Amino acid sequence: MIRIAVDAVGGDFFPQNPVQGAIEAVAENSELKIILVGPEDVCRKELERQGYTGDQIDVFHAPDIIAMDDAPAQAVKSKPQASIPVGLTLHAKKQCDGFVSAGNTGALLAASAFILGRLDGVIRPTISSVYPTTKGLGLMVDVGANLEVKPEMLYQFALMGEVYAREIMGIDTPRVGLLNVGEEEEKGTEVYRKAHELLKLHPRFVGNIEGRDILLGEADVYVCDGFTGNLLLKFGESIPAALQDLIQATIVRQNLPPESIKPVLGILKQALSPFDYQSVGGVPFLGVNGVSLVGHGGSSPLAIKNMIFNAARMVTHRVNDKIVSYLN
Amino acid sequence: MIRIAVDAVGGDFFPQNPVQGAIEAVAENSELKIILVGPEDVCRKELERQGYTGDQIDVFHAPDIIAMDDAPAQAVKSKPQASIPVGLTLHAKKQCDGFVSAGNTGALLAASAFILGRLDGVIRPTISSVYPTTKGLGLMVDVGANLEVKPEMLYQFALMGEVYAREIMGIDTPRVGLLNVGEEEEKGTEVYRKAHELLKLHPRFVGNIEGRDILLGEADVYVCDGFTGNLLLKFGESIPAALQDLIQATIVRQNLPPESIKPVLGILKQALSPFDYQSVGGVPFLGVNGVSLVGHGGSSPLAIKNMIFNAARMVTHRVNDKIVSYLN
Repeated sequence: MIRIAVDAVGGDFFPQNPVQGAIEAVAENSELKIILVGPEDVCRKELERQGYTGDQIDVFHAPDIIAMDDAPAQAVKSKPQASIPVGLTLHAKKQCDGFVSAGNTGALLAASAFILGRLDGVIRPTISSVYPTTKGLGLMVDVGANLEVKPEMLYQFALMGEVYAREIMGIDTPRVGLLNVGEEEEKGTEVYRKAHELLKLHPRFVGNIEGRDILLGEADVYVCDGFTGNLLLKFGESIPAALQDLIQATIVRQNLPPESIKPVLGILKQALSPFDYQSVGGVPFLGVNGVSLVGHGGSSPLAIKNMIFNAARMVTHRVNDKIVSYLN
Repeated sequence: MIRIAVDAVGGDFFPQNPVQGAIEAVAENSELKIILVGPEDVCRKELERQGYTGDQIDVFHAPDIIAMDDAPAQAVKSKPQASIPVGLTLHAKKQCDGFVSAGNTGALLAASAFILGRLDGVIRPTISSVYPTTKGLGLMVDVGANLEVKPEMLYQFALMGEVYAREIMGIDTPRVGLLNVGEEEEKGTEVYRKAHELLKLHPRFVGNIEGRDILLGEADVYVCDGFTGNLLLKFGESIPAALQDLIQATIVRQNLPPESIKPVLGILKQALSPFDYQSVGGVPFLGVNGVSLVGHGGSSPLAIKNMIFNAARMVTHRVNDKIVSYLN
């Protein structure tokens, strides 16, 4: 039995989507126990509304709610009874095996680091994200937890990302690349040059990756500081909508019949499906002493379900044990 | 009469493309004088081969060639007779009004800063690049000259970029945005927070721009450090090819008739035309005491011609005078 706590009041569509995701998850996996964390009446009403009558979902009362736009550190401090700190405290006390939320990423990161602590040997926990490429999904790490980094941190990001890519994303021998402004090892800032030196010892290090090689999937794990990673992550997320605008404008400009856009957008939508983060199901904080995943604020029930499954997989694959023994 | 020196042996297709671009430029503008800089016999032979017999193009002998993959600083030092240092020295001696090259960007940057020097009050010269958005072309600055920056440098990048956007790109009142990991002014590293403070005094500062807002054209001038800018620039350049791969794969996967791809790619090519940097015609080093532009290594004759026109426009619009009076 794996017990995953789910933030029932996180994201843009609570309690509906977290609760529905939880119901769908237990329907598919009888070995799963879900603890919905949130105001008890809200959770119970929603379970009832969705007609759930089974015994795989419990509710744990957390009266407060951290809003998506609350200042993270302050929210965690001033709302200790909110679902995020309550759920993570349950986890720290071993009353569950992991916690997932589609809520305030910053608050979740701050609370995860504070309540769960770091894994042995980890300098700084990191947040990574799956990243679409023409060769399949890669992992970018860090995407915003550590805006300024040291070479040793980048090195650890690589190792932690590699374990996650292998154990959870199913990439047998993940290639590790260091984002940089040129291929040559002397390129980049001093931090990146030193990180390159450290990574050269890594058997699956494929060297520096330039901006033009990211989408082409020249690596599986893209290592960078959180400032760069955050900009690249959000930039990538914006591509489908931007393209749709550009195509729409082209069709108007060229005076093409409006119905001619349909097949184009249809194929484009298919082609861009890897950019649809909804189905991916959350990304992990790596390096914390526990299992803590965060999903997009707009997470669908499917995304919540997949995030729950990813959390469960992190438990069964003992990802944290593997990270600790890899780092030390 | 405006005199622009053109690197005849820069880029992937020399001497053909630089010479053809020069010929096309003078054909369109009788007020233009071009000085082809490169090995004299190479230049004269190519002019002859292309049948040029006019008097708007001169040749200035520079026997050496800096290769695209030469280490920049070393190349400039060890090959003082190469087209790049020779052309820039001509410019420094006022024997021409500007210099353009599709050659080694790093060498051109190093030589421009060294030979031309800085404009009064400029902390560090910068390299900017036009950047496609759904609302038209923007300018990103810096895209690789200064990997590490100070707040005051970012502030100056904004002002210099604004002048270029207005005078050369024809954007009447350019909106200035600071790339960052969040909209709130307290977001980002200390350098970015302080830059935000400085930029708040700027009348057309629209605040922090997140990765997802770049393609949407939420600003006209995107200010960032050269590490981030270089990755975002090259990432953007890779989008068309990556999309073509993804669409091709979709058509194979869905077993669609091969001919169904043609209209899709046709519309997509039109839609992505802003990403085709070929026609843009080079980007400027801003902050150097002169006019120095660099083009993509693969620059077509059209791109070279447009780069020559941009250099000429920088002269007639007195861009550098305007930068100096703006900064001081």
